[in-house]
Amino acid sequence: MIVFLNGQFVPEEQAVVSVFDRGFQFGDGLFETLRVYRGKPFRWADHLERLRRGAEFLKIKLPFREEELLRHALELIERNRMPESLLRISLSRGVGLRGYSPKGADRPTAVMTLHPAPDLTGPAPGWRLITASPRLPANEPLAQFKTCNKLPQILARAEADAAGANEALLLNTNGAAVEGGGSNLFWIEGSTVCTPPLASGILAGVTRLVVREICRKLSLPCREADITPAELFEAEGVFMSLSSRGVVEVVSLDGKDLKRSPLVEEIRTAYEEMAG
Amino acid sequence: MIVFLNGQFVPEEQAVVSVFDRGFQFGDGLFETLRVYRGKPFRWADHLERLRRGAEFLKIKLPFREEELLRHALELIERNRMPESLLRISLSRGVGLRGYSPKGADRPTAVMTLHPAPDLTGPAPGWRLITASPRLPANEPLAQFKTCNKLPQILARAEADAAGANEALLLNTNGAAVEGGGSNLFWIEGSTVCTPPLASGILAGVTRLVVREICRKLSLPCREADITPAELFEAEGVFMSLSSRGVVEVVSLDGKDLKRSPLVEEIRTAYEEMAG
Repeated sequence: MIVFLNGQFVPEEQAVVSVFDRGFQFGDGLFETLRVYRGKPFRWADHLERLRRGAEFLKIKLPFREEELLRHALELIERNRMPESLLRISLSRGVGLRGYSPKGADRPTAVMTLHPAPDLTGPAPGWRLITASPRLPANEPLAQFKTCNKLPQILARAEADAAGANEALLLNTNGAAVEGGGSNLFWIEGSTVCTPPLASGILAGVTRLVVREICRKLSLPCREADITPAELFEAEGVFMSLSSRGVVEVVSLDGKDLKRSPLVEEIRTAYEEMAG
Repeated sequence: MIVFLNGQFVPEEQAVVSVFDRGFQFGDGLFETLRVYRGKPFRWADHLERLRRGAEFLKIKLPFREEELLRHALELIERNRMPESLLRISLSRGVGLRGYSPKGADRPTAVMTLHPAPDLTGPAPGWRLITASPRLPANEPLAQFKTCNKLPQILARAEADAAGANEALLLNTNGAAVEGGGSNLFWIEGSTVCTPPLASGILAGVTRLVVREICRKLSLPCREADITPAELFEAEGVFMSLSSRGVVEVVSLDGKDLKRSPLVEEIRTAYEEMAG
């Protein structure tokens, strides 16, 4: 496996960062995960836009121009012969002084790695969710970016693993159901597709945007709303969106069946046609 | 500079971790910072106890027994000839599969590094604080451990830097003033020393414990309470506690003077006598 590291292509074993890198010390960085189809990263511009805005928010300077980074990404895919894969882009603030102040840390670390894509052949099985215990702070602007501070999501995912579930549902500090450990939440009310607002403390998911584009194409009304876990059982259908898998129907929450709507399959199929 | 890395002592340039280390990818780890006085890490047992409990919470296996780690720490201090310094212990979950699930990541990374201690000679200047914008989730058990998810604290500290302040005051999602970016909060009401409860979403600071021990010695009553930033101006005195500096008086918040109590200096002096 070849890895892109600060402008160089290096073998996996040489893909290392200093223990003084603030990414390792404090999770002081951002990342993006993109699905690569036929050698091309899907929705590159949207992922890069989120990365750029996140870097601006954290005041980390992007060490490459977007076109440069894309050229390197395509070369990485080519060198590893992985036209169907997942591309992870990592950006950390690099090495700095001790302590939380970012002062003096002005040489960021940029990494790109490739990973096998999940196997999505065969019928799409619905996901079983459990409610996780970590709470996300509502109204936290930081949450919308894909930062390298993922312990709540890791703990949530570990709880899902332990329960034999596919994904964890996270609540925010107001008690609303807001997103999955690694996915955005949608539900259907009538023929309206609903999803929590960014202010509820969720990631501004790229696939969340794509789903809304699809809804416009299918003439399905779409709106942002709050919902409690209990209210999800009243919804006509529930699904999650994520870059690595697209649209995934949710069939149960905490062992209790959810209602299922044919609209979910319609949206899922439209996503596959657009992406795949 | 010599660094301890997974059982080896290596030169700084060779102190590296894989870009696939979950510490770098997700901040999936813990750390401790200890003040070293005359070659001995101060309050070693308390720091190790917090690290151990954090590792248990995150289900990361400590790769060394406590006595072993202490022996290595003492050797590191000796090799670097830094008897007056700060010791950072980092523990990450190590390399794992892609994604948030910790499954399969069972070879943690352990690192120890030394850093210059802050210069505390001369009169102790009081700190000027500003109120920071990131909010900490109240009632979050994860907050009590020193995890490698420090972006709220980094952003808070960057705001303090930009304002020319010494430290940032963080509020929780309920609007209470709960801790500093890298320090615990105390204030004085009558002759009672008050500090927010762990459930407010704060770090279980080791120096916070030491301050409470000192209060018992000085026969000062101590209690846990909630406070708003506005109410801090009613307090007879405000101070912060942190391992690298001990007890630091706070003289102003957002440019407005706070009241000052002689008890703060009494507690500070008692801390210095105990530690130094």
